[in-house]
Amino acid sequence: MNKLLIVGTVAFDAIETPFGKTDKILGGAATYIALSAANFKVDSAVVSVVGNDFPDEYLQLLRDRNVNIDGIEIVPNGKTFFWAGKYHNDLNSRDTLVTELNVLADFNPIVPENYKDAAVVMLGNLHPLVQTSVLNQLTAKPKLVVLDTMNFWMDCALPELLDVIKRVDVITINDEEARQLSGEYSLVKAAAKIHEMGPKYVVIKKGEHGALLFHGSEIFFAPALPLEEVFDPTGAGDTFAGGFSGFIAQSGDITFENLKQAIIHGSNLASFCVEKFGTQRMENLQTHEVKERLQRFKALTQFEMANI
Amino acid sequence: MNKLLIVGTVAFDAIETPFGKTDKILGGAATYIALSAANFKVDSAVVSVVGNDFPDEYLQLLRDRNVNIDGIEIVPNGKTFFWAGKYHNDLNSRDTLVTELNVLADFNPIVPENYKDAAVVMLGNLHPLVQTSVLNQLTAKPKLVVLDTMNFWMDCALPELLDVIKRVDVITINDEEARQLSGEYSLVKAAAKIHEMGPKYVVIKKGEHGALLFHGSEIFFAPALPLEEVFDPTGAGDTFAGGFSGFIAQSGDITFENLKQAIIHGSNLASFCVEKFGTQRMENLQTHEVKERLQRFKALTQFEMANI
Repeated sequence: MNKLLIVGTVAFDAIETPFGKTDKILGGAATYIALSAANFKVDSAVVSVVGNDFPDEYLQLLRDRNVNIDGIEIVPNGKTFFWAGKYHNDLNSRDTLVTELNVLADFNPIVPENYKDAAVVMLGNLHPLVQTSVLNQLTAKPKLVVLDTMNFWMDCALPELLDVIKRVDVITINDEEARQLSGEYSLVKAAAKIHEMGPKYVVIKKGEHGALLFHGSEIFFAPALPLEEVFDPTGAGDTFAGGFSGFIAQSGDITFENLKQAIIHGSNLASFCVEKFGTQRMENLQTHEVKERLQRFKALTQFEMANI
Repeated sequence: MNKLLIVGTVAFDAIETPFGKTDKILGGAATYIALSAANFKVDSAVVSVVGNDFPDEYLQLLRDRNVNIDGIEIVPNGKTFFWAGKYHNDLNSRDTLVTELNVLADFNPIVPENYKDAAVVMLGNLHPLVQTSVLNQLTAKPKLVVLDTMNFWMDCALPELLDVIKRVDVITINDEEARQLSGEYSLVKAAAKIHEMGPKYVVIKKGEHGALLFHGSEIFFAPALPLEEVFDPTGAGDTFAGGFSGFIAQSGDITFENLKQAIIHGSNLASFCVEKFGTQRMENLQTHEVKERLQRFKALTQFEMANI
């Protein structure tokens, strides 16, 4: 089995949507990525940090899915990263109510020896210097390095962000972030500029409007599945990244054709994530549900074209 | 050749976008629909009204494309409908600056005798009573009736609109209009409610985010082609409708499979419309350009799925 190295936050979230609110629940980019990637046959490991307030049952969720957690540092007397947010009525935007970095403030990632030669590296949204530190610890060149980031780092750590972007094969960002990073409104032009910053592949996530994969002048698009109810968008982007990187790690194939499939798998898994609060839906996801919904994705976009 | 009956405005537009502004130029829903449908082998006719201020060269554009214009009434001493609008910076919204109904205020549509048995009827955005009057003049049941409308009629002529919606096979509206008409935020739920109002097929246009085709529990999605530059969105929805109804009229096939293709053709033609001001791009569109871009649409969405 190919190794997938996942770096990102493991955290507490408190979420409010128009449909309800939660207390502190399991959250964090690496959590969503790992739960999503666990739908593929991969040997994955998470590098992260939590405090000793973090319940072992949450870590057990990952162990149960054969996710190696040797790289999750537990800081004695430390408090776990906590984020609280409230979504607006259309669920397309949200306000951050609380950000307590806690143990994340001094996070020094340590890649377990056995994963320094991972085939695929998924750098979840974190300080670019943490992402760089992980790359510096690798002993073999991965087949593919995927980086997720956000506008926050463009605002306050742009030089460090540009340094790490140079070193990755794929960047996944949302449409507004692509515009901010490139200074271009057109996503086609934005992707072209971001290509020049390093990544061969640029994935632009548009939430309910799907995702675009750019590779030079080639473009592939996967819609989001139209859903009757979207309950909580938290983690959808990370779940997408987990499906994307998990599928690539499983297949070991980094061609454009295969990355198209990876985009579909990412979109498919993200469509489940938003159906319940937090990680709830992903924790209970069944293989047959994943396969059935993949068929819906095919039906949604595939067509036969007669000659005109 | 199958007959396509097109009803809608033929008008003057004055457009301002972040990229420039025009004087009074050729506009109107029926104009865009007819120019778009002219890319297919159909016998089409336009029912509309203009004033005697309307230049014959504009009518000649339609005649040159074998569009029958016997149903375009020219009102002596009348003034042609005029609309002026200004787009916001993101081109996704616009302000109406001027609406002069002029001859449209007393428009009484007369369907030419030879088109009362049209195979496909495309009811462009107009007062629902005008759309109803056209349906009442038909002597044979069309294979397919497509209706386009807008929020304005939902605000000020809802009962009349609901009456005509009952009688059509396909409704095309944008996402906000679908939400307004149904009272549902989720587009899946909105489409289900609109199905209950009459139309077997519900097309929800999301502009740069593509279009959804709903048929019972089946959904098909076509993206908009990601473009380097969008110059002027005016007429894109009507161009979509023209491509959609034109392809269906050409093929004479009203199965779901064929309607999927029609959505792709509509999206393809709309992608040209927005590249220049007004009707300019559609006037000079070449067959080989249309075919080439269809291949880009296929590449954008078609994929091979390996088993997971």
